[in-house]
Amino acid sequence: MAFTLLINPGSSSKKYSLIQDGRVVSNTRFERSGDTFEICVEQDGVQQKCEGISGDTFSMSLRQMLDRLVDTKVITNLQEITAVGIRIVAPGSYFQKHQIVDGTFMRLLREREPAAPLHIPHTLVELEVIQRELPFAKIVAVSDSAFHVTLPTWARDYSIEATDTTDFDIHRFGYHGISMSSVVDIVRRQSDTFPARLVIAHVGSGVSMTALRNGVSIDTTMGFAPDSGLIMGTRAGDSDAGMLLELMRVKNMRLFDALAYVQGRGGLKGLTGESDFRQLLEHATHEEPIALAALQHFVYRFQKQLGAYAVALGGLDMVVLTATAAERSALLRTHLLSGLEWFGITLDPTMNEVLLGHDGVITTPGSAVEVQVVRTQELQEMLRVTTSFIS
Amino acid sequence: MAFTLLINPGSSSKKYSLIQDGRVVSNTRFERSGDTFEICVEQDGVQQKCEGISGDTFSMSLRQMLDRLVDTKVITNLQEITAVGIRIVAPGSYFQKHQIVDGTFMRLLREREPAAPLHIPHTLVELEVIQRELPFAKIVAVSDSAFHVTLPTWARDYSIEATDTTDFDIHRFGYHGISMSSVVDIVRRQSDTFPARLVIAHVGSGVSMTALRNGVSIDTTMGFAPDSGLIMGTRAGDSDAGMLLELMRVKNMRLFDALAYVQGRGGLKGLTGESDFRQLLEHATHEEPIALAALQHFVYRFQKQLGAYAVALGGLDMVVLTATAAERSALLRTHLLSGLEWFGITLDPTMNEVLLGHDGVITTPGSAVEVQVVRTQELQEMLRVTTSFIS
Repeated sequence: MAFTLLINPGSSSKKYSLIQDGRVVSNTRFERSGDTFEICVEQDGVQQKCEGISGDTFSMSLRQMLDRLVDTKVITNLQEITAVGIRIVAPGSYFQKHQIVDGTFMRLLREREPAAPLHIPHTLVELEVIQRELPFAKIVAVSDSAFHVTLPTWARDYSIEATDTTDFDIHRFGYHGISMSSVVDIVRRQSDTFPARLVIAHVGSGVSMTALRNGVSIDTTMGFAPDSGLIMGTRAGDSDAGMLLELMRVKNMRLFDALAYVQGRGGLKGLTGESDFRQLLEHATHEEPIALAALQHFVYRFQKQLGAYAVALGGLDMVVLTATAAERSALLRTHLLSGLEWFGITLDPTMNEVLLGHDGVITTPGSAVEVQVVRTQELQEMLRVTTSFIS
Repeated sequence: MAFTLLINPGSSSKKYSLIQDGRVVSNTRFERSGDTFEICVEQDGVQQKCEGISGDTFSMSLRQMLDRLVDTKVITNLQEITAVGIRIVAPGSYFQKHQIVDGTFMRLLREREPAAPLHIPHTLVELEVIQRELPFAKIVAVSDSAFHVTLPTWARDYSIEATDTTDFDIHRFGYHGISMSSVVDIVRRQSDTFPARLVIAHVGSGVSMTALRNGVSIDTTMGFAPDSGLIMGTRAGDSDAGMLLELMRVKNMRLFDALAYVQGRGGLKGLTGESDFRQLLEHATHEEPIALAALQHFVYRFQKQLGAYAVALGGLDMVVLTATAAERSALLRTHLLSGLEWFGITLDPTMNEVLLGHDGVITTPGSAVEVQVVRTQELQEMLRVTTSFIS
């Protein structure tokens, strides 16, 4: 029996999916929330209850998960796992493509570690464990920024010294590319004519927006690192140099502290103390001033970005909302699209209310710009990419 | 005889205008370009030739200028200067109003010096010389950010920890406010009905864009410091935290170095090696690839911002272009507004070509959004503010 393992490593959550013949056999999720850790297992589509675990278990999650797969007889032995696909979030032109993980890849990823100290170390640990525990499996690096390699220079480059851009490989790489790619595939299958001028907004705990011309990314809100652009759960999104340098000065923060701050203490968490969209909306519904202000701030930045990308595309044909928060909350979608009728977006309140957990259109038939909700299929996209290397 | 002296202090240029009965009697400009310095004097509207000066003379420019006024008998003695208006570019809620310079002002400006080490030291030097040389004159601080005090929370605040916003007074203060205020006055005088949804773009060596509802600033591209937003002559405009921290890491830059970099080595200078719009346009006209790419980058960011502010305002009634580069270059205006017909902006090529150094409309009568060129009158606005404190 041949299985494929898909890995989504992160600092506060790690997800493992075991796939056989295109079917998810088992999902295992390790979560950290402050000082508490838990593991959640879903087998053959049935969610088993989550259990508390120790920090040590969390840090050895891949080894734990593999043991469990053998113990519960999901697989007979580890050699049945013949392919591994791992999501790579790493700044660098070299990492803007899907590829087999080999010695060169490992060396370059280690070299780039200081540029992304919050992401690369976790990925390196996972890769080292995979290489040790699954020595016969092919490992595919599924790049989260490959989708944005098409950005033209004026969107890809920063307005800094041209020699620094090239010498230090500092570009706007963009992320959420696996999600974007899966959504483009779905829209392509569902539409008679693919929208030439499309904006896709990914609204999960990470939030980004991408402008696509004929399905090709021409601009995206995340930059060198996945912390810029729109307001996120814990990430500040766009800040500016003057502000950041002042914040570092008054709080006496070093580079790593500043990075940890903008990625972990900004955004909704910074504004309200809580990073979760559900809580934000719940509190906003109860007219709590801090939540209302944060929601308004979030929506304001979101809508301005939509206006910017409409101009970048020379007009809009379609907007797609995807990822957990956008897929599950009709209320959030109402806020995101409110007041945009002059702009060609007319929400259909009934369609918006009923559309939860399904794909569909939430604008009226007469709306000049169609807004679709599409459930992102990142896992399927990772599987597709991984499989394409294993033939 | 009573004169008013208006001062615009900067790190690379200092401008002094002597006013009598609302009329400019004398303009003196000190410029630094690298290691060379010069002084240019204009008297009674007649430009006299510029002269090279030493660095010492540059650093004592105010004292030099005052001596020259007495020597050339423009004024009989320094006591004739009864009022001084000085432009203040300083981050801080306290500095977001026009006010008399007193002991409290001086103390708070000195305290804020580390937050704006490229601007405040020059201003402090000027103020100290004024207080010593013109002890009887009233000194008015003309705030360059007062105009933006009306920004709503969601535009004024960054998405960082709420306590840091308040504890350290870190807001988006915005600049170019003196220019904005003068342009609003001119538009008010020239228009039968004042445009409810207006965007003003200031395109000089500094570049910014402001969204105004009924003449009131609701958003602006400059933030805590005057380095964010659009691409400028030497300022990078919007960057992002991930990029900036990486740049600081690889180039081993400290806070001051990083600030000096984004303010002095980014923007057009960083992209092309030259900071001047005239040179950029000249080279772009000759199809030089670096200039063409930089111009495209500049225009792309400009147009995206216009789209963002259109959404912030719920649509656009008028766009005003102001400041040197926009006032003097029909070619630059053509680039800035190209491809925006779908957006309601239709340039009138003939009107655009003929309008150099005058105010006027450069869109066709049928253009849904009217674009005006208005010459900014910062000096008159500084005089108006200064005079309002001297009655």
